[in-house]
Amino acid sequence: MHRTHNCGVLRASNIGENVTLSGWVQRSRDLGGMTFVDLRDRYGITQLAFNMDTDAELCTKARKLGREFVIKIQGEVIERSSKNDGMATGDIEILVNALEVLNESKTPPFTIEDKTDGGDDLRMQYRYLDLRRKPVKNKLMLRHRLSIETRKYLDSIEFVEVETPYLIKSTPEGARDFVVPSRMNPGQFYALPQSPQTFKQLLMVSGFDRYYQIVKCFRDEDLRADRQPEFTQIDCEMAFVEQEDILNTFEGMVRHLFKVVLDHEIQDFPRMYYDDAMEKYGSDKPDIRFGMEFVNMNPVTQNKGFAIFDAAELVVGIVAKGAANYTRKQLDALTDFVKRPQVGAKGMVYCKCNEDGSFKSSVDKFYSQEDLQAWANHADAEKGDLILVLSGETDKVRKQMNELRLHMGDQLGLRDPKVFAPLWVLDFPLLEWDEESERYHAMHHPFTSPKPEQLGQLETHPGEVKANAYDMVINGTEIGGGSIRIHDRGIQQRMFDLLGFTKEEAQAQFGFLMNAFEYGAPPHGGIALGFDRLCSLFGGSDSIRDFIAFPKNNSGRDVMIDAPAPIDQTQLDELFLATTSKEEE
Amino acid sequence: MHRTHNCGVLRASNIGENVTLSGWVQRSRDLGGMTFVDLRDRYGITQLAFNMDTDAELCTKARKLGREFVIKIQGEVIERSSKNDGMATGDIEILVNALEVLNESKTPPFTIEDKTDGGDDLRMQYRYLDLRRKPVKNKLMLRHRLSIETRKYLDSIEFVEVETPYLIKSTPEGARDFVVPSRMNPGQFYALPQSPQTFKQLLMVSGFDRYYQIVKCFRDEDLRADRQPEFTQIDCEMAFVEQEDILNTFEGMVRHLFKVVLDHEIQDFPRMYYDDAMEKYGSDKPDIRFGMEFVNMNPVTQNKGFAIFDAAELVVGIVAKGAANYTRKQLDALTDFVKRPQVGAKGMVYCKCNEDGSFKSSVDKFYSQEDLQAWANHADAEKGDLILVLSGETDKVRKQMNELRLHMGDQLGLRDPKVFAPLWVLDFPLLEWDEESERYHAMHHPFTSPKPEQLGQLETHPGEVKANAYDMVINGTEIGGGSIRIHDRGIQQRMFDLLGFTKEEAQAQFGFLMNAFEYGAPPHGGIALGFDRLCSLFGGSDSIRDFIAFPKNNSGRDVMIDAPAPIDQTQLDELFLATTSKEEE
Repeated sequence: MHRTHNCGVLRASNIGENVTLSGWVQRSRDLGGMTFVDLRDRYGITQLAFNMDTDAELCTKARKLGREFVIKIQGEVIERSSKNDGMATGDIEILVNALEVLNESKTPPFTIEDKTDGGDDLRMQYRYLDLRRKPVKNKLMLRHRLSIETRKYLDSIEFVEVETPYLIKSTPEGARDFVVPSRMNPGQFYALPQSPQTFKQLLMVSGFDRYYQIVKCFRDEDLRADRQPEFTQIDCEMAFVEQEDILNTFEGMVRHLFKVVLDHEIQDFPRMYYDDAMEKYGSDKPDIRFGMEFVNMNPVTQNKGFAIFDAAELVVGIVAKGAANYTRKQLDALTDFVKRPQVGAKGMVYCKCNEDGSFKSSVDKFYSQEDLQAWANHADAEKGDLILVLSGETDKVRKQMNELRLHMGDQLGLRDPKVFAPLWVLDFPLLEWDEESERYHAMHHPFTSPKPEQLGQLETHPGEVKANAYDMVINGTEIGGGSIRIHDRGIQQRMFDLLGFTKEEAQAQFGFLMNAFEYGAPPHGGIALGFDRLCSLFGGSDSIRDFIAFPKNNSGRDVMIDAPAPIDQTQLDELFLATTSKEEE
Repeated sequence: MHRTHNCGVLRASNIGENVTLSGWVQRSRDLGGMTFVDLRDRYGITQLAFNMDTDAELCTKARKLGREFVIKIQGEVIERSSKNDGMATGDIEILVNALEVLNESKTPPFTIEDKTDGGDDLRMQYRYLDLRRKPVKNKLMLRHRLSIETRKYLDSIEFVEVETPYLIKSTPEGARDFVVPSRMNPGQFYALPQSPQTFKQLLMVSGFDRYYQIVKCFRDEDLRADRQPEFTQIDCEMAFVEQEDILNTFEGMVRHLFKVVLDHEIQDFPRMYYDDAMEKYGSDKPDIRFGMEFVNMNPVTQNKGFAIFDAAELVVGIVAKGAANYTRKQLDALTDFVKRPQVGAKGMVYCKCNEDGSFKSSVDKFYSQEDLQAWANHADAEKGDLILVLSGETDKVRKQMNELRLHMGDQLGLRDPKVFAPLWVLDFPLLEWDEESERYHAMHHPFTSPKPEQLGQLETHPGEVKANAYDMVINGTEIGGGSIRIHDRGIQQRMFDLLGFTKEEAQAQFGFLMNAFEYGAPPHGGIALGFDRLCSLFGGSDSIRDFIAFPKNNSGRDVMIDAPAPIDQTQLDELFLATTSKEEE
């Protein structure tokens, strides 16, 4: 037997017991006659004591232990002379009488401490050592807890987990698929699912009624910092529901998760229309932990002789409370921020509402103190506040102002990761125009139901049609999205027509789904929540990578196992494939 | 709102309530003034009543409903005049006052009944309709229940579910990998995991201690009737354990599952050495629901002048209790059975132990009544029993006798699917000799630990070395298998040497694991249970396919979505791939 207890469990009540422990040497200290070793496992750290006076041989052996050696010890639980309130086992130590080295360790390439000296690359290459570090381990434990509690909740309200296939069919619509050549069907390929979308809809046609799955999905996209080629979704679908049922169900789930996992009571779970979100926050995923809503400044800024504002479709302002004391340097930095290519504004106008009732703006040449007072009145700015103003074409300036607002939120400490502000964004547009391909794309996906009352506008004013689609947003992050689906073959066909599919293409790619709609498909809808993102939100982190045991880097590589890699020619031959790249080996 | 109740929940206590139900039309009957419709959903069936006398328009509408139409109704729960004890809702019916057709249905290609008229191919093509059938739906509900209870049990004993990657590296050892071309790394490929083996071992190196995952795995093998290219495992690993700890843990899990899912108490959970299993049952997965153990008949059958037995390495018998009354025809059929190419015996000898104390054998020419009495004594056969004997080369004849024993078990009704006889098979050989490649292969996998006391024989007598490997067998089916792993770099290197890897190959493919062993790898081991198989066992079925929502056929095709399929040339180009098959489109 390798242990009677783990390293986190012994307390004063165990004093006098003989125990066996196994674990890793965290550190050791030689103090003259005594040697102390901190023994670590997943559950905690227990101090081991070796006495040079009473057992010189054993103590000498202990002194040779290196960091990260795996050892097994036997000994007696004794009271510590100097207790450590900072650790759960701090009242006791083990007076060791037997020591066995189960495995030695080379010196790790970085320290296995909460704050490590290892850089990102090294930590990823030795991910199995990085995972020993408490902050990283705790992130995966949190992920486990979230997955268990998600399942418990959904199970308790009669959701059934059904596994959908991973080897499916490639569909050119949407993001790029990862494909898998079929050896048994030469020249043919499976695709890895970007989501189980069509399968979960078929399960509704089957009558499963309430489906969920915590499932890996795959997208072969050019990776951004926070994207992974494989990612995990909490994927759900319900039949015989309206949008309201889905919102309530998943609002309930998220409340449950916050309560049981973080002991946090979510208060408000407001709803906002997409159009309002764009108007007030310039984003379909507003961070509503703080206000700073957009104010349309056109009425008080235009026709005052300032050509830039006069020419602008929209002059939009935000009020940064208490920021009138911003220095010239700080204001210049804000201007630099909005002028970065990623934001793309041409400039920024400010107006300080000084404590003495006067105003100081960067456009004093064009606006009198009375004009600026009108700005302040219009924007609800008070003495001590700072008004920041951008102008331009409506859609663009809103996006720019969204960036500036979030930036100001950060600067003013209004985006506390311990505060959680969830939100439903409703009534997304059904379609968005793609300039490049000169056609409409589905904003959510081609299975999303238009608002029934707008069905008549589908062909005449497609851009104006709203969808029964919704996003769950928490702290400015899209945690999930979903929609009521089309369950009528005719409407589905009209959608495919709108999206530029020929009848043949639609039938070849999604015929099975449209056929299924002819055999009694119930009204249904669902949602998919990004599980990696949810974990990082709960963990108070911006990066999802830490919440994935073995993540890939920005080139889609697993640097630890060194994948992807060339494969044998025999494997290619069996698959009837040849690589055409120069870079092959 | 689409429903206030589901179709399985209303009882006499609800009489008088106004309810809204939605579901599918299972069937309808017109009885003069009344029309009755059975409304079905996942939860059950509720009878709807339409009265021609009181609401002719509504009743006429109801009479036009076809099978599988999706409808929503409102009405009052009333007492049934003729109650139906056979259904949960049989005390009540709904007197309908409003009916809405939510979706129509074409006539399904097969009947949606417990016993359907649809053949396998049709049912697979319209799997979404097949899944509406109660027996199929219940199989997936059972699967859900098993997965929930598995997680609950493992969670309760501190196992952590950790998701391991699906896009990993191809390793030529073992079965064939499915590969995934990498667009961002031209000429390189990911592989889909055959199991998360190396990752779970790394998690042990990381200190996670107790890991599990219910996870899809992939093998590109030529499919047999009961194999799927993608399948699900309950994958587990533990650190600081010996074999005994693992056996106890997963015996506990299986007992828990039987108890909570089937309300069945597992009594014995015996253990058997691999060598004994082969000797007594000719199989490493014996069905011990019945005895009929092999008897070595060499001592009583050889040197009596029967050349075939005299020349045989092994003469082996089984006793079929009470089967002495087998007819000539039945015995001939048994002989035919063992002579089938799949079994491969040249013939079969029988000896009836008649009720009158006499014996009748197919080799009376060579054996006297006294000789046959000695057979009976040796084999513990009693009056009324039938002794069946095969002979030949030991390994072959054992395999043949295993087939015959299972066949007799079926014939004599000894293999009741409601009886569960679990078993651990222990001490598998570490290696098996492969005639074709003329080298040793790992019987389990290259990470399995040899018995420590046999390490010295590894290079001298590799074929004799046993492994710390074990299989869980229930009712003659291998439900899971695992081993204590190697955690020492040196021993792992010796294993790779034995298996014919060059140092460079071993380092290229498994360097990350061997490196990990140098940084304090703890003793560890684990097990993987076939989840599809476990579900079919619990469901009392031989086929795993019914327990998979969307299975593939024997050519690895999903006939419903028609995958795999050719992909666009642009997709191939982006992947720097060309297909070399004639069969491509």
